[in-house]
Amino acid sequence: MSTETIATSTTPRTAKSAPSHPLSPLSASELTSAAAIIRASWPAHTDLHFKVVTLEEPPKAEVLRYLDAEHSKKSLPSVSRRAFLNYYIRNTNKFHEAVVDLTTGRVLHNVLLGPFVHANGDGDEIVAIEKAALEDEAVQAEIAKLQLPEGTVVISDPWIYGSDGIDDEERLYQCFLYLRDPSNPAEADSNHYALPLPISPVLTTETMKVIRIDLLPTGVDNTLKPTEPYQIKPPNEYIPEHQQLRTDLKPLSVVQPEGASFQVSQQGTSNVVEWQKWKFRVGFNQREGMVLYDVRYDNRSLFYRLSLSDMNIPYADPRHPYHKKSAFDLGDAGAGIMANNLKLGCDCLGSIYYLDAVLSDDKGGATPMENVVCIHEQDAGIGWKHTNYRTGRAAVVRSRELVLQSIITVSNYEYILAFIFNQAGEVSYEIRATGILSTQPIDEGIEVPFGTVVHPGVLAVHHQHIFSLRVDPYLEGPDNRLVYDEAHAMPRSDFNPHGTGYFVQETVVSESGGYDLDSSANRTFKIQNANVRNPINGKPVAYKIQAPDFQKILSDKDSFNYKRAEFSDHNVYVVKYRDGELYAGGKYTNQSRGGTGVRSWAERRENVKDTDFVLYIQAGINHVPRIEVCRHPHLPYFPCFLFAPHLA
Amino acid sequence: MSTETIATSTTPRTAKSAPSHPLSPLSASELTSAAAIIRASWPAHTDLHFKVVTLEEPPKAEVLRYLDAEHSKKSLPSVSRRAFLNYYIRNTNKFHEAVVDLTTGRVLHNVLLGPFVHANGDGDEIVAIEKAALEDEAVQAEIAKLQLPEGTVVISDPWIYGSDGIDDEERLYQCFLYLRDPSNPAEADSNHYALPLPISPVLTTETMKVIRIDLLPTGVDNTLKPTEPYQIKPPNEYIPEHQQLRTDLKPLSVVQPEGASFQVSQQGTSNVVEWQKWKFRVGFNQREGMVLYDVRYDNRSLFYRLSLSDMNIPYADPRHPYHKKSAFDLGDAGAGIMANNLKLGCDCLGSIYYLDAVLSDDKGGATPMENVVCIHEQDAGIGWKHTNYRTGRAAVVRSRELVLQSIITVSNYEYILAFIFNQAGEVSYEIRATGILSTQPIDEGIEVPFGTVVHPGVLAVHHQHIFSLRVDPYLEGPDNRLVYDEAHAMPRSDFNPHGTGYFVQETVVSESGGYDLDSSANRTFKIQNANVRNPINGKPVAYKIQAPDFQKILSDKDSFNYKRAEFSDHNVYVVKYRDGELYAGGKYTNQSRGGTGVRSWAERRENVKDTDFVLYIQAGINHVPRIEVCRHPHLPYFPCFLFAPHLA
Repeated sequence: MSTETIATSTTPRTAKSAPSHPLSPLSASELTSAAAIIRASWPAHTDLHFKVVTLEEPPKAEVLRYLDAEHSKKSLPSVSRRAFLNYYIRNTNKFHEAVVDLTTGRVLHNVLLGPFVHANGDGDEIVAIEKAALEDEAVQAEIAKLQLPEGTVVISDPWIYGSDGIDDEERLYQCFLYLRDPSNPAEADSNHYALPLPISPVLTTETMKVIRIDLLPTGVDNTLKPTEPYQIKPPNEYIPEHQQLRTDLKPLSVVQPEGASFQVSQQGTSNVVEWQKWKFRVGFNQREGMVLYDVRYDNRSLFYRLSLSDMNIPYADPRHPYHKKSAFDLGDAGAGIMANNLKLGCDCLGSIYYLDAVLSDDKGGATPMENVVCIHEQDAGIGWKHTNYRTGRAAVVRSRELVLQSIITVSNYEYILAFIFNQAGEVSYEIRATGILSTQPIDEGIEVPFGTVVHPGVLAVHHQHIFSLRVDPYLEGPDNRLVYDEAHAMPRSDFNPHGTGYFVQETVVSESGGYDLDSSANRTFKIQNANVRNPINGKPVAYKIQAPDFQKILSDKDSFNYKRAEFSDHNVYVVKYRDGELYAGGKYTNQSRGGTGVRSWAERRENVKDTDFVLYIQAGINHVPRIEVCRHPHLPYFPCFLFAPHLA
Repeated sequence: MSTETIATSTTPRTAKSAPSHPLSPLSASELTSAAAIIRASWPAHTDLHFKVVTLEEPPKAEVLRYLDAEHSKKSLPSVSRRAFLNYYIRNTNKFHEAVVDLTTGRVLHNVLLGPFVHANGDGDEIVAIEKAALEDEAVQAEIAKLQLPEGTVVISDPWIYGSDGIDDEERLYQCFLYLRDPSNPAEADSNHYALPLPISPVLTTETMKVIRIDLLPTGVDNTLKPTEPYQIKPPNEYIPEHQQLRTDLKPLSVVQPEGASFQVSQQGTSNVVEWQKWKFRVGFNQREGMVLYDVRYDNRSLFYRLSLSDMNIPYADPRHPYHKKSAFDLGDAGAGIMANNLKLGCDCLGSIYYLDAVLSDDKGGATPMENVVCIHEQDAGIGWKHTNYRTGRAAVVRSRELVLQSIITVSNYEYILAFIFNQAGEVSYEIRATGILSTQPIDEGIEVPFGTVVHPGVLAVHHQHIFSLRVDPYLEGPDNRLVYDEAHAMPRSDFNPHGTGYFVQETVVSESGGYDLDSSANRTFKIQNANVRNPINGKPVAYKIQAPDFQKILSDKDSFNYKRAEFSDHNVYVVKYRDGELYAGGKYTNQSRGGTGVRSWAERRENVKDTDFVLYIQAGINHVPRIEVCRHPHLPYFPCFLFAPHLA
């Protein structure tokens, strides 16, 4: 918990005033204007609960004309600024979607959605749900049966109510209850996940009232027992003052005496970053957080847009109500609104530049989001080396990387999300998961095959994290194709008399669909532009995709989990580009029923060869919890660790 | 090629004199004594060509008794020091294996090997082969047909002669010829791999004479054309003075003002490293390079021995003589003898400690090997983080790693090999390949499915790199087991009514054999000790193995490539421990015929459950060459890059 690593700060901020770019996020004044325009469309005193006010990105064709003019330094076409809004009439289930033109002040679209269409949660709502759950008299009566020590603090973690098709037309929250350490109830940062309770209130957001109290199964089957007096369990705290910290680690500093090698040019609400032949525009929104636009290398276009599109986390416990734990952390909450304010030395090292953002609040106002992206360089080891053994001369270069990092907190979990660029034209997207396991109570002395006992009386259930990265390529032009290479053994012949030969064969993907990796064939996907050729060997320019394989969603094909997580069953989805299709799990994931995401789009079976297509690249882990040797509840993953310890 | 990254140096060297440890490499005097003892066993003036003089590790049972006494601070048993030797009677094919007792001076074992058993190459021999090939009159006559410009320098790259069972009983070298840039013939570091020639002399080491000159196919099939006048091709240099270097990267320094956090205690020829609860002994030998012994965490034993055991690189071109390109870089050459002298700032950053070694030479003398291992710490990003959204308090720790790195040059290729330890008890083995592609001539205007044209007239053939890491576990005692977990969907039932449940199931591996990953089942191997239980949940202590899947060897099962690379067909091999079994491809890989490595040992079908077993973990890539955007001939792999560019 100590920050044993020292860092330096300060980078020259190349702030300059520039006209609004069509891809710039809405400014605070645009956000509030958009909300005001919608508010004005309703009778006075109608109380609106805004869920999101964000940039409605212009049609791609318009933006491409703008970018073309921008890069060729011609006069810029005018592109109208539009806002996309979602809102409720407060304390009703009337959920709306609207688009307003900020230039003219006109409402272009304003419709009531539903049925089965619900908004994401938001911070104020979640806090209100927590409070309502704990203040409910029936909940208090159930808690009273626990006969907790005087002063014990009960904590409520509201969970998104995953769909199962049973009485879930309403927008609901399932709350899981925990204790702060009863022997230290004043500690507001006590790790309540170490002390879960078997009581779970369900609330409706229409009235913000408890509609039901679920008791939780705590044995090996789905038997429910009446609430009994609580047996005191040991705490398990994470805050540093409760740890025996190591004292034998000496400081390691990253120092850049001449500052950073990148430039950031702030242009209104977006930022243009330039580094080592790279140039791109950074946006930020409520749902996806960081978005990169118009990514170019050496003035050659590569990507129109890059963002994390979606994330699904289905849990393995099939028992009611746990079977509904299947969150979409972007669609149900939002990577932007959950972003941490990053700190030098802890979250980022070296010469750091921080980006701020502004997002909407539930009242139609603006919420400043400070330091939500940090930009820094890092050394990445040896970039290339060769020693001529005849002369002994070694030629060696180190590799430098540029990192754009955000960290989001989604209740118990943290995700560390980063785009990483290198000097060889490669870009990677790194996902690290950290934070604390989502826990539930379990009777002592038993074990279950769908979870791991990680603390006395505490079960951490197995779960999958499945991520979808949206890649909208523009590889030297709009007409790209997806291909895959496979390596196969040659049959024996006069040409291959010793059975040692093999060959690589390329297959063009011509129809939208879901496609998979196959390590036995070394199957490798590439984005190509067949119209632009490498001058040396005449092969099309291409970008290779390297993503680790993962176990696809384990929920069966008839389950709501499977139907809703439309990206969870293939390594790669490719679809023809359509304006407005951004989210692999569909636009509205909260209590969704499926049929609105990338699997459905792919089923249009459209041509994706030599045209404008979008790729969704999935990655995932099956998190089978273990007791961590360092007592950190959950270590980062996606590293190259060969061994991971399961020591006591 | 510039070293734009600055580094600081100096670490307190805790040098202290200590008695020789049974696992310490042979000292210079032990090496020379061992050779002298063998030399004395032959008639005077017999000229011996030593291939290796190295520590014959004592039987494990003896070492374990010693380690037990060492750790419990009891009086140390005496363990005799023995040397293992391989040698030829010089300029004959009489290849010997010997073991001598250094304490008594007795020869314990000294036998003539063969047939079909051949030694590794060594540096002096390779230089002599190069010279002999180029001085051969028939070779010169063939080169003359090229009508090269006056002063052009021809370079010969001797290659290990991979077995095909055809006239390969003798120990042979296949030389591939190249040019330095004819317009700059004085440049000794000209990249000759950019200018390959179609002439390939074959030499026998018995006489060091050319026995045959192969012409090389340069078309799409195996047609051979008579040698014709050479058409001048453009050079492609890697040395910095031939590059347009970027000037816009500012320095990034890693500074450790209080020095490093690790201690190195030099004990004779081995070094004990301590860092963050880790403690282990570092050895170094001719074949494996760096070897770690007696690896412990928090004074709990984890591994008896860790090392890179073998590496095989079969090439895809089935045409004579290219089908024989299938090197074993450890067995045919040696990771120790090929190790680079590492330099601060280029190869390693921060507060570095270098380890030296001493190896044998071909005359039975000692070769000092300076700075062959560098030890340093590095920051590895965020180790763990959680933000309590209710209080806004973030708890965050950074992650520090300890790196032990060696870099080896095997002709055109470099491998960057590192053991990396972290603060959470995890250890990883990282392999990066860099250097230059092995190239061959190709006619202009054609392409072939088994390679990529990377430069005018230059073909880089596809090839696999298959590595085998030897893991000899000692997880809290000798009796360990290998298990694997799989995650499976639960069938629908009253317990799983929504089809969302899944479970994890453990399988114990009870018999020696080759086993594979299966990402569709999330199959995960673990080393367990069933006798030692986690006090929280009663599960056996274990070490999880995380290795990326890879395409197994593509050469068919009847090929010599397959028979020889006994580790190349499974992700994991597990065998019962036997003294002296160290190398997954067998003890003598040069022109081997198979049957002497880990596949053969596994076929003993021995019990490996709750006993002393050894694990061989394979990793690999299928390298399908591309033209690199940065003009570096070959970038590192095994990184987490999501995209890799194929731009012109």
